[in-house]
Amino acid sequence: MAIKLGENNYGKSRVRLLRVVRQEGRHDIKELTLGIRFEGEFEAAHKKGDNRKILPTDTMKNTVYALARQYPVEAVEEFCQHLIEHFLTYNPQVSRVGVEARENLWSRLPHGGKPSPFTFTRSGAEKRTAALSGNREGTAIRAGIEDLTVLKTTKSAFDGFLRDPYTTLKEDRNRILSTSIHAQWLYDGNEIEFSPLWHGVRQTLLETFAEHDSHSLQHTLYAMGEAVLNSFDRLREIHLRLPNRHFNLVDLSPFGMDNPAEVFLPTDEPHGLIEATLRKE
Amino acid sequence: MAIKLGENNYGKSRVRLLRVVRQEGRHDIKELTLGIRFEGEFEAAHKKGDNRKILPTDTMKNTVYALARQYPVEAVEEFCQHLIEHFLTYNPQVSRVGVEARENLWSRLPHGGKPSPFTFTRSGAEKRTAALSGNREGTAIRAGIEDLTVLKTTKSAFDGFLRDPYTTLKEDRNRILSTSIHAQWLYDGNEIEFSPLWHGVRQTLLETFAEHDSHSLQHTLYAMGEAVLNSFDRLREIHLRLPNRHFNLVDLSPFGMDNPAEVFLPTDEPHGLIEATLRKE
Amino acid sequence: MAIKLGENNYGKSRVRLLRVVRQEGRHDIKELTLGIRFEGEFEAAHKKGDNRKILPTDTMKNTVYALARQYPVEAVEEFCQHLIEHFLTYNPQVSRVGVEARENLWSRLPHGGKPSPFTFTRSGAEKRTAALSGNREGTAIRAGIEDLTVLKTTKSAFDGFLRDPYTTLKEDRNRILSTSIHAQWLYDGNEIEFSPLWHGVRQTLLETFAEHDSHSLQHTLYAMGEAVLNSFDRLREIHLRLPNRHFNLVDLSPFGMDNPAEVFLPTDEPHGLIEATLRKE
Amino acid sequence: MAIKLGENNYGKSRVRLLRVVRQEGRHDIKELTLGIRFEGEFEAAHKKGDNRKILPTDTMKNTVYALARQYPVEAVEEFCQHLIEHFLTYNPQVSRVGVEARENLWSRLPHGGKPSPFTFTRSGAEKRTAALSGNREGTAIRAGIEDLTVLKTTKSAFDGFLRDPYTTLKEDRNRILSTSIHAQWLYDGNEIEFSPLWHGVRQTLLETFAEHDSHSLQHTLYAMGEAVLNSFDRLREIHLRLPNRHFNLVDLSPFGMDNPAEVFLPTDEPHGLIEATLRKE
Repeated sequence: MAIKLGENNYGKSRVRLLRVVRQEGRHDIKELTLGIRFEGEFEAAHKKGDNRKILPTDTMKNTVYALARQYPVEAVEEFCQHLIEHFLTYNPQVSRVGVEARENLWSRLPHGGKPSPFTFTRSGAEKRTAALSGNREGTAIRAGIEDLTVLKTTKSAFDGFLRDPYTTLKEDRNRILSTSIHAQWLYDGNEIEFSPLWHGVRQTLLETFAEHDSHSLQHTLYAMGEAVLNSFDRLREIHLRLPNRHFNLVDLSPFGMDNPAEVFLPTDEPHGLIEATLRKE
Repeated sequence: MAIKLGENNYGKSRVRLLRVVRQEGRHDIKELTLGIRFEGEFEAAHKKGDNRKILPTDTMKNTVYALARQYPVEAVEEFCQHLIEHFLTYNPQVSRVGVEARENLWSRLPHGGKPSPFTFTRSGAEKRTAALSGNREGTAIRAGIEDLTVLKTTKSAFDGFLRDPYTTLKEDRNRILSTSIHAQWLYDGNEIEFSPLWHGVRQTLLETFAEHDSHSLQHTLYAMGEAVLNSFDRLREIHLRLPNRHFNLVDLSPFGMDNPAEVFLPTDEPHGLIEATLRKE
Repeated sequence: MAIKLGENNYGKSRVRLLRVVRQEGRHDIKELTLGIRFEGEFEAAHKKGDNRKILPTDTMKNTVYALARQYPVEAVEEFCQHLIEHFLTYNPQVSRVGVEARENLWSRLPHGGKPSPFTFTRSGAEKRTAALSGNREGTAIRAGIEDLTVLKTTKSAFDGFLRDPYTTLKEDRNRILSTSIHAQWLYDGNEIEFSPLWHGVRQTLLETFAEHDSHSLQHTLYAMGEAVLNSFDRLREIHLRLPNRHFNLVDLSPFGMDNPAEVFLPTDEPHGLIEATLRKE
Repeated sequence: MAIKLGENNYGKSRVRLLRVVRQEGRHDIKELTLGIRFEGEFEAAHKKGDNRKILPTDTMKNTVYALARQYPVEAVEEFCQHLIEHFLTYNPQVSRVGVEARENLWSRLPHGGKPSPFTFTRSGAEKRTAALSGNREGTAIRAGIEDLTVLKTTKSAFDGFLRDPYTTLKEDRNRILSTSIHAQWLYDGNEIEFSPLWHGVRQTLLETFAEHDSHSLQHTLYAMGEAVLNSFDRLREIHLRLPNRHFNLVDLSPFGMDNPAEVFLPTDEPHGLIEATLRKE
């Protein structure tokens, strides 16, 4: 039976970059971790050890730094587009280039009541992400958020659910709801005001999480996705992945105490996980 | 513009289990971390907060433990099949069940020159994995390996590659080759001797890595996949993901020293990443 | 030769707690991870397997939840004092109790221009810490900060340093300075306004980092510690541990480009590490 | 009130090294992560920003690679001694040098029934460690083990313990006992056969863990430490830190099932933690 080389790609992961833009009286910084992926004519490399169509992944890394010198890296999505364009232009053996970026967010320290022009602090685990995939016909641009952790102490129930003989969970009309938002959305085209839109989507996700009268995490996920798609014309679809970070009410009855939703045990495992894509028809 | 609920699923992640089988004079243990995923009729939950078709993820977790009491959990793949069968039987609202398992490997401590019957040590970061996806027509069974880290000090070159103006990498005919093997293969059918086959595939991957005269990590990946598919009838395809764990030769010339491939800097980032699927035609 | 049991202790680590305080129109939350450590008369347990003086670590965990029901857990330091007092009162076999706490910081989401009364987001990797050690004579109270990551693009040099034959580092009068602040300070007594003081120390550390004209990370560390001790009467000493998170200027000369402090490579390893304790005489 | 600079040190952390020794027909490898710490006359650097007595941490890193070229790095402890000697010789401003090393363990892949001469696999999370601290009078040498995870399914009880009103733990005469061994021992002098001794101590720890009829983890810790000190003349003391990795028996009674010590929930948090130092008198 013959063996065939199927889908394959190669690239460089975890390419880290800090880009500083120095203006009189004010510096801006951008910290990214990038991944680059090539698809193309690599059969001879796999089958014969012939590397003539293999651009080293070390060169991909160098290219990130060389292009970072030429472009300001303001919107992550634009910098990724430059990388894709560059690689497709100079590499006829490559049919598709993928670039993924994760931005570590920094905010300015307060200084004398104003944001400092030169000093920054890491804003948390939250990341701004971009995932672009381009060939010679065009480029699909996705932007996103990872690890934006939120929690609410009201307006969250989970009841009326299906039961079977292994079900022991109690109905809960006043539970804590907490998740780490992982969102990724697809843009319609590439002439986009990326940074303002990213902040707009983020704000809509947070507001909907806060205000929604939740019957389940599925219910809240859908409300969040719907609010985003209804608010932003340039988004075609959004994918949400929401872990259910359980906070279990501690049973204090063995100690003769009640527990009116005051003392909880935070847990990481096991956890629920809800995923869905919403799209405009 | 109307909004549509697209692909969606929910489930429980990081369900941990230790199963002990106690025989006279000898105990066996199996440690797993499981993830369960349901696809089905969940539109009412998303859109209306109607949970009547939502089996709680807490029940999924309970089911793992109840079934672990009834089955010995010897081959991971068989235990996952029991879970899928159970969920499909009792949940008409569910159209597809996915189960993923990662096994922490334990080996017996030596004891008086023989393997101990009751005492174990964790064998490393390496995991045995299984990923099954089943509906009422059948179940696709994948098995795999994760984080099996290997290194060789001979028979590894990378030269004759494509160069562009940003290429600074030197040709190397005697480099260190190291990777963490991530492999996943698809079985043909489900009447399989899972555990012997898993050990056989693992051994073939390791032997090929050791013996192959490598021109690149792509070249070695293909050789590893090809050897596995040629050796095992019951495998239809194999996917390999191999990070290139770079060990950079340290430049000692500033200190007036040469470095004949003796002193290296191990690095985690950035790293190359090679992925491919090989399949039988 | 006789063998002696020297210093020893036992306890429970990673006890997690979320405490919710529910007032009309506003909820407060506090998320802690606690560790408890007992010293005392445990020789019989070690030498003979006699557990009569061993309170189970499971009971330590239960005690955290029982006391969390009785106290609001507003200032971490006060809650830790309650735990120490409880354990010393009911356990004559225990001579010293240590309690360590790490607080995951949450901030209120903005909601209609104001902080939300019921919805929160995790503020980052930064932790507020407390470490108390008490016996029947008294309790030493330390508070601290961990993983508060900061960066500045000006006022940082490192030059005029000692050189030896293995020194290749270039002098730098305009380097990026970045660190993750780990600070721990000792209070004078225990009648302290813990939370306002914690915020005050944090603010002083950040302001000094921003304003200081740094000749080295040692130089900045000392300035930070000195500013804190000079500003706060109730602190007797402060320990600072500052990793030097290097951002290496990328050499773009192989591509015919200069790099006027714009493109940097962030690295995690290796990293410098500066530690010092400052105290009032 | 005057402020005084107390204990202080600086150094380089996470310096990574792979050392290859190439002999005809057989290569040996050693992978280390090192940390170096200087104590000395650094007051001017802290207080005045005067760096004339500060050897850059970058130079410490370079020195590791230069010395690794000159020495085979066979026993970790000997390589650390060379580093300390070098730094004390060339740096009169330094009064004490600390060097810590963690060795990633690699074993040879089997190849045709024999250990491969050139191909290796990572042996697990376990690390061999060394911690040396030297001044001009002498050097204290400690060796150790980290993250050696073990588990036994017999000969482990915990009963007869102290109870208070918050105690709910049940007595258990047949529990699973699991821990990750963290051991560190102090050598008497420095003319030691480091590698054979390290393997001997490791073997004694494992055998004692396996054979001991455990009444508690304290009881087992003491037995392990005592066996080591009794077996090896050149050890003066040993410190053991043993987390109690709990495996909780799952309550299956809600599903009408018993659970005769077969189905367990492995947990990482909370966990018990037992620490003690044993020394020869």
